[in-house]
Amino acid sequence: MSDIKQNLKSNGIILPQTPAAAGNYIATTIAGNLMFISGQLPFRDGKLIYKGQLGKELTTEDGKAAAGLCALNLLSQITSSLKQYTLKQIVKIEGFINCSESFSEHATVLNGASDLLSKALLEKSGHIRTVMGCNSLPLGAAIEISAIIELE
Amino acid sequence: MSDIKQNLKSNGIILPQTPAAAGNYIATTIAGNLMFISGQLPFRDGKLIYKGQLGKELTTEDGKAAAGLCALNLLSQITSSLKQYTLKQIVKIEGFINCSESFSEHATVLNGASDLLSKALLEKSGHIRTVMGCNSLPLGAAIEISAIIELE
Amino acid sequence: MSDIKQNLKSNGIILPQTPAAAGNYIATTIAGNLMFISGQLPFRDGKLIYKGQLGKELTTEDGKAAAGLCALNLLSQITSSLKQYTLKQIVKIEGFINCSESFSEHATVLNGASDLLSKALLEKSGHIRTVMGCNSLPLGAAIEISAIIELE
Repeated sequence: MSDIKQNLKSNGIILPQTPAAAGNYIATTIAGNLMFISGQLPFRDGKLIYKGQLGKELTTEDGKAAAGLCALNLLSQITSSLKQYTLKQIVKIEGFINCSESFSEHATVLNGASDLLSKALLEKSGHIRTVMGCNSLPLGAAIEISAIIELE
Repeated sequence: MSDIKQNLKSNGIILPQTPAAAGNYIATTIAGNLMFISGQLPFRDGKLIYKGQLGKELTTEDGKAAAGLCALNLLSQITSSLKQYTLKQIVKIEGFINCSESFSEHATVLNGASDLLSKALLEKSGHIRTVMGCNSLPLGAAIEISAIIELE
Repeated sequence: MSDIKQNLKSNGIILPQTPAAAGNYIATTIAGNLMFISGQLPFRDGKLIYKGQLGKELTTEDGKAAAGLCALNLLSQITSSLKQYTLKQIVKIEGFINCSESFSEHATVLNGASDLLSKALLEKSGHIRTVMGCNSLPLGAAIEISAIIELE
């Protein structure tokens, strides 16, 4: 995973502490060549940074930043788990956006994560997405993002 | 994929233009024998046809039609991407329904997609589903549907 | 699957009737070594036991119990489908929580499912999770949970 860390470093990006699971589950599972990563909240080093709803307490720009932070936590989980594996590609990310009923910029918000993955992983970052608006998230978080990746 | 197109034609169904991605991601990824398809909105030829919430601006019947259109866009993405592959089965569809709090006919709405897939793909259409109500979707869309398929 | 049933029995847990699909889809699909299971609602023997929103009509404890019941229905689907297969691990569960805007205990609620899986499956229960709050669910159900499992 040294290439990922190198790309992050060239972009001045530092991976946050790998968040602990918030319940009776684990952060990553591997089945065949697929790794599944638990939904990540916008935590930085143990503190939930973005709380509240987009379209109310938070703006679309806040949401993009929160999505980028979720993506960093995904990368932190991936690099922690991938000791003996190599990432082939990001297959899918699932974005859950805590927002008001009238909010409609979900795609722009999730670009905060896609752009970060693109910077860090270059041609391995290609992924499909789902994104939806929800009326609440764990701990009042603004965003949650989960991923499926393919290993070499 | 000529069999899919033939089945659609026999049922008088024309595939819409393949929608472009609405952000920094791609429409389909392949990992092993699985293809993942990005969430599709009820677009037809570049225009978002169904906007608003079921149980408010839109009826359950509107929702079924919107879900069918999402399914057509999934098939459009699949047939565009599957040049050298053959579809074995639809494995899973994920339905996100933009609706009011009191709405409860999510399953009926998602049948609009399942019925369309069944018509187009016959015995290859069998799939599992998740469906949930959300308070908003990208661009104010009424429905979003994503899929995972298995390739031969 | 006799080990799962034995573990459930030792814990005094009886699997409910396997719920029928609520639409034009199937309960489980298999692709390679992965089995996908449709979203399960908190049904017991044909009756939807937990309806309404957490944070309004229902408490967090109700939600945990409802999540446990969804997990039992997942196990009921899995044991019904796994005649000739052996479960290797639970890979992922997706929890959809019907709740009020101010609800924030999604993780505690989903532990109701994770704890049940842990009791029934011991070391095979490790899984990643996504969980989100939604403003409605099919039939007004309080919770829906879907799963992906790996087969031997």
